[in-house]
Amino acid sequence: PSAAPARPNIAVIPGDGIGPEVVAEALKVLTATVGPDAFTFTHYDLGADHWLDTGEVLNDDTLADLATKDAIILGAVGAAPGSTTVPSGLLERGLLLKLRFALDQDVNLRPSKLYPGVRNPLAPWVTCGGDVDFVVVREGTEGLYAGNGGSLRKGTPDEVATEVSVNTAFGVERVIRYAFQLAIRRRGHLTLLHKHNVLVHAGGLWNRVFTEVSKEFPGVTTSYLHIDAATIAMVTDPARFDVIVTDNLFGDIITDEAAAVTGGIGLAPSANINTAHTFPSMFEPVHGSAPDIAGKGIADPTAAISSMALMLDHLGRPRDAARIEAAVAADMAGRTSATRHTSEIGDAIASLVAGAS
Amino acid sequence: PSAAPARPNIAVIPGDGIGPEVVAEALKVLTATVGPDAFTFTHYDLGADHWLDTGEVLNDDTLADLATKDAIILGAVGAAPGSTTVPSGLLERGLLLKLRFALDQDVNLRPSKLYPGVRNPLAPWVTCGGDVDFVVVREGTEGLYAGNGGSLRKGTPDEVATEVSVNTAFGVERVIRYAFQLAIRRRGHLTLLHKHNVLVHAGGLWNRVFTEVSKEFPGVTTSYLHIDAATIAMVTDPARFDVIVTDNLFGDIITDEAAAVTGGIGLAPSANINTAHTFPSMFEPVHGSAPDIAGKGIADPTAAISSMALMLDHLGRPRDAARIEAAVAADMAGRTSATRHTSEIGDAIASLVAGAS
Ligand SMILES: CC(C)[C@H](C(=O)O)[C@@H](O)C(=O)O
Ligand SMILES: CC(C)[C@H](C(=O)O)[C@@H](O)C(=O)O
Repeated sequence: PSAAPARPNIAVIPGDGIGPEVVAEALKVLTATVGPDAFTFTHYDLGADHWLDTGEVLNDDTLADLATKDAIILGAVGAAPGSTTVPSGLLERGLLLKLRFALDQDVNLRPSKLYPGVRNPLAPWVTCGGDVDFVVVREGTEGLYAGNGGSLRKGTPDEVATEVSVNTAFGVERVIRYAFQLAIRRRGHLTLLHKHNVLVHAGGLWNRVFTEVSKEFPGVTTSYLHIDAATIAMVTDPARFDVIVTDNLFGDIITDEAAAVTGGIGLAPSANINTAHTFPSMFEPVHGSAPDIAGKGIADPTAAISSMALMLDHLGRPRDAARIEAAVAADMAGRTSATRHTSEIGDAIASLVAGAS
Repeated sequence: PSAAPARPNIAVIPGDGIGPEVVAEALKVLTATVGPDAFTFTHYDLGADHWLDTGEVLNDDTLADLATKDAIILGAVGAAPGSTTVPSGLLERGLLLKLRFALDQDVNLRPSKLYPGVRNPLAPWVTCGGDVDFVVVREGTEGLYAGNGGSLRKGTPDEVATEVSVNTAFGVERVIRYAFQLAIRRRGHLTLLHKHNVLVHAGGLWNRVFTEVSKEFPGVTTSYLHIDAATIAMVTDPARFDVIVTDNLFGDIITDEAAAVTGGIGLAPSANINTAHTFPSMFEPVHGSAPDIAGKGIADPTAAISSMALMLDHLGRPRDAARIEAAVAADMAGRTSATRHTSEIGDAIASLVAGAS
């Protein structure tokens, strides 16, 4: 896909649980921002129900078709943990991770911002919203997510199950370089998270590449935290972070905690970026399918809506992206403790975007 | 070692950084509790300085000697991240993890309790201290800590570094069984943390064993959380936890976050238990060597002191353990925002123990 397509072709995968509910609101806001004819949308019926109906998670033809799009919007996939009809990991590994890996989405970008006035669990430690504003650059195509592992003597008292974390200089370098470039455009600070005192091989590689690439960016100050220590800093002092770079699993963990301290997982957007622009990038809320609240109209679509800003930015429309961000911020500032229906939030943000245009 | 030795032989490894400072206070409180002659102590000079002096981290004779003790008290080991004299992981893997693995310390027990009145980052969400009181049962001898991994073409642009998580039915079952037994003696709820939707092999094993063992404990209610979701619950609703069981790495991560939300890493004790009683168990604060504050007398020895309560419990002296716990709680309740010297805190808790006897 080109970096700034004239009339982008967008694949939409609403998915499971609350996925369809929040994607509907994201599309509503997107249309309010760019108009009804700026983009072409193709909907894909994939996820738990599709698998139950057809026995297929994602076939090769569909994958090949998705690979030709300019971007993908994804709601959420995954059955409830403990579901007896859908095997654990089937949809996550067969659909979500399959897309991230097959479409070489090397940078999983996850911004966290504490909007002024937003209820968060850290008050009164974190009083001033504007201070907490950082981005996690999570590696998206390697590590423990590579799917290398297996089980010997499965189901017996002598079972041995392994999982292999695979880390390449190529993969580590491109995500670290991206993070440095991002840090330069922000406040100029980059923190590496790993656990190199235990994971000495993978950690050694991450350290060496980080040190090497840092030489090209003298304007960026750097720091290092072990992942365990990082979970402490995320609670006691999240304002210290500007850009964080880390591997796939540590990035998964720290971004959920980051969401928790900045108002909740209902607000956290993400972009799975194919930095080479050879395949489409994919935009999705950090949250999952949340089967427990699906169908009730109480899911917060803000994360999905903010993901649209990341998509517009990626598609070369930073001004449209900024309009969505401003509308989200305005909506946040006006929130009370009253619960709003999913579509009310979408309506409110859509009309804020329209009003500001 | 026997389960309740008459005059226990205790190995003391003060270690690096703030290790010696906090261990001195722990021994002070221990002596105040059991008297000067109840235990025999042997000090071992191991850690960064010992390595720099001798080139040895832990030789076979010392390990064999340690293996004959009734218990080990450890301060902290590890040089500063980025140290140029001590290779990353040398002391962690060569000393701390070597002991945990060689002495088959399968259960790494880490209680978290929010004492009433203790300053914590979650106020006002968590207002009533007594509600947050849980124990993490972290597996101690497997997983990504097994040290299986390597690096191909190290230091070149084509490097591939791997880390292998090894999980056995044997290792997973004993720690899960321990956790169920602990849950029965507590509030009867056990939560499994893993990431079985991605780590399907290891996660599958953990799930199967958990389900199997749960049948023997109909009085225990169970739940499951993915590790990423658990970092959210730990911030927004830590009171929901009673006993948590998880693997080595997830346990490392969640216990640091747990410490952060219950008053800080300076308060978090741990026990590395050899449940078979074939080797000594090891008692240490969760915190590390904290080189940045070493030598300043500002380290909080409470975690090391509370670890002594875990040791006394393990050595068959639950009443002495309870005396230390009560003294720590009393000291906490009286804390103000004024900083106290490391030894002041030790003195205060020691005299509370003595006064209550
Ligand atoms: C659903 C799951 C496979 C996924 C992940 O682990 O990456 C999710 O937690 C996320 O963070 O996007
Ligand atoms: C120092 C390090 C090897 C250790 C670990 O990762 O287990 C520490 O973080 C801990 O939690 O005891």
